[in-house]
Amino acid sequence: MSKKILVLNTGGTFNKIYNPINGELEVDENASALKHISHKWQHNLEINSIINKDSLHMTSQDRVELLAFIYQSEYNDIIIIHGTDTMELTAEYIADAELEKNIVITGAMVPYSIDATEATANFAMAYGFLQNCSQNGVYISMNGLILPYDKITKDRDNGLFVRM
Amino acid sequence: MSKKILVLNTGGTFNKIYNPINGELEVDENASALKHISHKWQHNLEINSIINKDSLHMTSQDRVELLAFIYQSEYNDIIIIHGTDTMELTAEYIADAELEKNIVITGAMVPYSIDATEATANFAMAYGFLQNCSQNGVYISMNGLILPYDKITKDRDNGLFVRM
Amino acid sequence: MSKKILVLNTGGTFNKIYNPINGELEVDENASALKHISHKWQHNLEINSIINKDSLHMTSQDRVELLAFIYQSEYNDIIIIHGTDTMELTAEYIADAELEKNIVITGAMVPYSIDATEATANFAMAYGFLQNCSQNGVYISMNGLILPYDKITKDRDNGLFVRM
Amino acid sequence: MSKKILVLNTGGTFNKIYNPINGELEVDENASALKHISHKWQHNLEINSIINKDSLHMTSQDRVELLAFIYQSEYNDIIIIHGTDTMELTAEYIADAELEKNIVITGAMVPYSIDATEATANFAMAYGFLQNCSQNGVYISMNGLILPYDKITKDRDNGLFVRM
Repeated sequence: MSKKILVLNTGGTFNKIYNPINGELEVDENASALKHISHKWQHNLEINSIINKDSLHMTSQDRVELLAFIYQSEYNDIIIIHGTDTMELTAEYIADAELEKNIVITGAMVPYSIDATEATANFAMAYGFLQNCSQNGVYISMNGLILPYDKITKDRDNGLFVRM
Repeated sequence: MSKKILVLNTGGTFNKIYNPINGELEVDENASALKHISHKWQHNLEINSIINKDSLHMTSQDRVELLAFIYQSEYNDIIIIHGTDTMELTAEYIADAELEKNIVITGAMVPYSIDATEATANFAMAYGFLQNCSQNGVYISMNGLILPYDKITKDRDNGLFVRM
Repeated sequence: MSKKILVLNTGGTFNKIYNPINGELEVDENASALKHISHKWQHNLEINSIINKDSLHMTSQDRVELLAFIYQSEYNDIIIIHGTDTMELTAEYIADAELEKNIVITGAMVPYSIDATEATANFAMAYGFLQNCSQNGVYISMNGLILPYDKITKDRDNGLFVRM
Repeated sequence: MSKKILVLNTGGTFNKIYNPINGELEVDENASALKHISHKWQHNLEINSIINKDSLHMTSQDRVELLAFIYQSEYNDIIIIHGTDTMELTAEYIADAELEKNIVITGAMVPYSIDATEATANFAMAYGFLQNCSQNGVYISMNGLILPYDKITKDRDNGLFVRM
């Protein structure tokens, strides 16, 4: 119990902040959301920001970079913060590599900067799950569900993840 | 995976709200914090409020009531929301009953109503942990740590829980 | 002192809320921001929502509708909530009518739903100003400045209003 | 219009922050609430913290110090942040000095750190009022009302200020 966990940040809604100059929500390049969680939780998170994108803009090359990073990492327990639109694609891509690691992909429907609750809950559920995880695999943690990546999907009409 | 979890609310800082009439923080009797988490997480939590107290005021009788409720409950996986001051006492009391259940006690150093992040993270870490938990026991989930109740303690000088 | 003030809501950033379905910020049609201010301030605001638009989409017809509403209103002291992009245009249009009324146009660079402080401050500054206002005219209240509409302008590079 | 205004901070609920070590709300000695308002409003406030007290603990000597500070100040337009319990006493004490200044006393029923809206609104209403104020006097700005200090009082049963 109490394993060392790596948090890999790739962007997505979880990290979006409001830009008053252009009136748009943009992916924050400073990982402020994770830093705020770490600070307020009073728990030192190991955070590594390797990609800062809306997941609609994730390319095959981004996924290769992500997989290589995971493969080479000394960590066996990894949380990936990812946009929700292509979270399932990335999960499948990583799962196909059949690594001997425990990987949870999470993110948020509402940016942490707009409302902290959902983003924090998705993330911390992943964190608690990994403390106990003994069966290697790729999981998705969203909206109170944490399941193998192929048992959960985004319900685009209702704006949340549901069991498949 | 994806077990049914019961949330037992007993009060504590997690649930405190500001009363502008007397200027004090008081334990909210409506479990608004858990309801907000359930609503914003878009996940239906099974919540049962049985005690609404600052944990300094928890009596032996309150602990008997809590234990009886857990014992009689059909749920095997239970999260208890509890004040931090006597969280360890209650954990030990429940552990002594050696129930064949997975129980996580959690709470917050900062009320959910003042800042949502820590309370949400403590709670959701417990939630994720229980999804995977196969070894019966009583655990405490606070400030990024989730450990058997006798391996974690409140550091009163620094206002957080630490490994023992 | 303590005049009756009408709040005319036309939309704009002040009123934007996050839509998790499409990931966009949208003008809230329920005037929730003003209702929250009224509720939390414990002061009953007279609110009238007549247009719900991003101010980039305000048409000449919208401005005619707004002016007609003001002209016919029994209120002499009116606050208009308006998007910042064409706030100055609308102010000039209303000023040209030379009404014998005290009118303050306000809005926000950051939506009330994302961070309450700036929107609340712009609005309440307008409210306090009107309590004392004896010289008819059209004013703009933004970012700590409240001035005749032709003495203040949006600084688009820095995302705030400045003295002209 | 657009006068220079001094903000004199004396403490009170407006400035209270939660202390997780002892679980109490305490008057913040760093005037963080006013600094946050200044930063988010993007308007440089002239802030002077001279007393940091719950207003129940304000002494006669504190009031003398406050009055002396106001009297000697070069500013004619002053906002005083003050606890609500003895706001009226302090207002009367300052009014008795019959200074040729415009003074608005304000504060909050709910700490800025718990919910920003009421504190910000009370303060910004005072700010807008002073931009137009030409009749010397001592006013109180609370809960949507801004009136001469002897026309407004705290309704302790309902937790807000009302017209007398």
